[in-house]
Amino acid sequence: MASKESQAIKDMYRAWTEARLNPDPIDPLGHIDHWGDVTAEPRAVDYLEVDANGVPAMWVVPKGCAADRVILCLHGGGFVGGSRYTHRKLFGHLAKAVGARALIADYRLSYQHPHPAQVDDATAAFQWLLDQGFRAERMAFAGDSSGGGLCLTTVLRARERRLPQPAALMLISPWSDMELSGASYETNHEKDAFFYREVVQGLVDAFLGKEGSAKDPLANPLYADLSGFPPIYIQVGSDETLLDDTRLLEGRARKYGVEVRRDVFPDQQHTFQMAAGRAPEADEAIRRFAAWVAPKLGLTVRESAAAAAIDSRDRAAAL
Amino acid sequence: MASKESQAIKDMYRAWTEARLNPDPIDPLGHIDHWGDVTAEPRAVDYLEVDANGVPAMWVVPKGCAADRVILCLHGGGFVGGSRYTHRKLFGHLAKAVGARALIADYRLSYQHPHPAQVDDATAAFQWLLDQGFRAERMAFAGDSSGGGLCLTTVLRARERRLPQPAALMLISPWSDMELSGASYETNHEKDAFFYREVVQGLVDAFLGKEGSAKDPLANPLYADLSGFPPIYIQVGSDETLLDDTRLLEGRARKYGVEVRRDVFPDQQHTFQMAAGRAPEADEAIRRFAAWVAPKLGLTVRESAAAAAIDSRDRAAAL
Repeated sequence: MASKESQAIKDMYRAWTEARLNPDPIDPLGHIDHWGDVTAEPRAVDYLEVDANGVPAMWVVPKGCAADRVILCLHGGGFVGGSRYTHRKLFGHLAKAVGARALIADYRLSYQHPHPAQVDDATAAFQWLLDQGFRAERMAFAGDSSGGGLCLTTVLRARERRLPQPAALMLISPWSDMELSGASYETNHEKDAFFYREVVQGLVDAFLGKEGSAKDPLANPLYADLSGFPPIYIQVGSDETLLDDTRLLEGRARKYGVEVRRDVFPDQQHTFQMAAGRAPEADEAIRRFAAWVAPKLGLTVRESAAAAAIDSRDRAAAL
Repeated sequence: MASKESQAIKDMYRAWTEARLNPDPIDPLGHIDHWGDVTAEPRAVDYLEVDANGVPAMWVVPKGCAADRVILCLHGGGFVGGSRYTHRKLFGHLAKAVGARALIADYRLSYQHPHPAQVDDATAAFQWLLDQGFRAERMAFAGDSSGGGLCLTTVLRARERRLPQPAALMLISPWSDMELSGASYETNHEKDAFFYREVVQGLVDAFLGKEGSAKDPLANPLYADLSGFPPIYIQVGSDETLLDDTRLLEGRARKYGVEVRRDVFPDQQHTFQMAAGRAPEADEAIRRFAAWVAPKLGLTVRESAAAAAIDSRDRAAAL
């Protein structure tokens, strides 16, 4: 059974469903701005906005982290919402656990800018990191939901442009299937509190626009040649309608000989890691990501733990 | 009538009252961590944690601000809660409107550390700013609720230590009366959604501890000699039980010849400015603070407006 704190994620999605069916006439997507409210403050992390090669971005810098290790973070929100602000704390928890800094790239959103604006912006942010002197083999990509799929297509785009590849991909409930072919849309229909077939189909339509194709590998990585891809770690909740997206992705990666790990978290919703710092399942998921990725970034467990151990005097004083 | 967005403040306080009467056995003050959820992201502001002379603090740095102007910010929370995290966005809005940077000082809280720990920590943070080379005449203090009263006592403590005075004080619903002498505890009892006499009495008891006196000027600035104090701008909601705190404070300041302005905002709750970026009343209040304080910090209106005008590409693109 999900913890009480993880239940907050399901409650939030139920409220989103309510907002979808009875939209606020002034601000129909206003509730999305509150997404990050479910995440606790990671503390001892700095946040600095920066222009990354034309892409609005935010440095997320845990105290004591390895300054030359970077996680390029691509937020979720179905390509129509979410931002560095909604996901600042989630990626702060992840960066702190890993002991690396993170850069959140705010790619353009699909209502105004359909595909391939998103993959172009994410690739531009990656190029910017390389231009700053960060080495790809000391870099990982991380993303949730649409941002998870975007991690994959950004590796494809980078390959097209003969850029190097990151050392690893951490995918949180990645959405990649633009054809909605998974049986989990039906089998998890009663358990998932928001991501019903009609919701996701609306997101596909906005993302692909008039010109896009659901079979374009740069939009739908399930059609991509994944040979030579970096190791992939997928986390997903058992109760998601997108569960089969990740099953299909895992199979595709195996077919191309990619190192892939997929953990299904029982009784969990889409991107349940947003409850980081509050829900034990979210904290455990982030702990697993950190343990998996640290050696791939050339970090020892001790180096990785150093940043995570730094906290503020006020917290210690309260104990 | 309060805007719908300001109504969110009253709804929050009603939920706090519910949490007070039916506390969570594991985390009875956990709801306070969500305080800042009512505030919109100011955007284009950086946040950096720092140790300020032993006091945990956070730089809040709007893009394009005047780097040598500082607002020392003291958060509310009855001296038992609140932090740089709950108030990061509120003070971000204020700093951005003024065109200055802010430093939020996380003074020790009174359950573990009763008075005078709070005024000692706030004064230590002020000393740290002076040690960094910031000039007092280019500095303002700002605080809400207990942090508002603390702004006053910090000026007193600084005077004791022969430190210079800041150029101005911006007080949001300042709580200063440790004797609960205001008639507004009764006249606004039905309108205020949280700050009932018994709540505030509990905060007084925690703050003063076993040794403190409600007539000590360093704990209760209504007993202080305010002669020579910097100009004071007080904002308060008409529906607060603390309304008379601010009336008494205004009278006390006038008696000592201090320049004082007090604006009562109709139909508003305690620290309604926390809805900044969402509620028009909160934004108007912050606009008034900025217009009032900018010349006192030697900023022209144009300099002040420059930081406020900087926003991120994503917002502009969404229009």
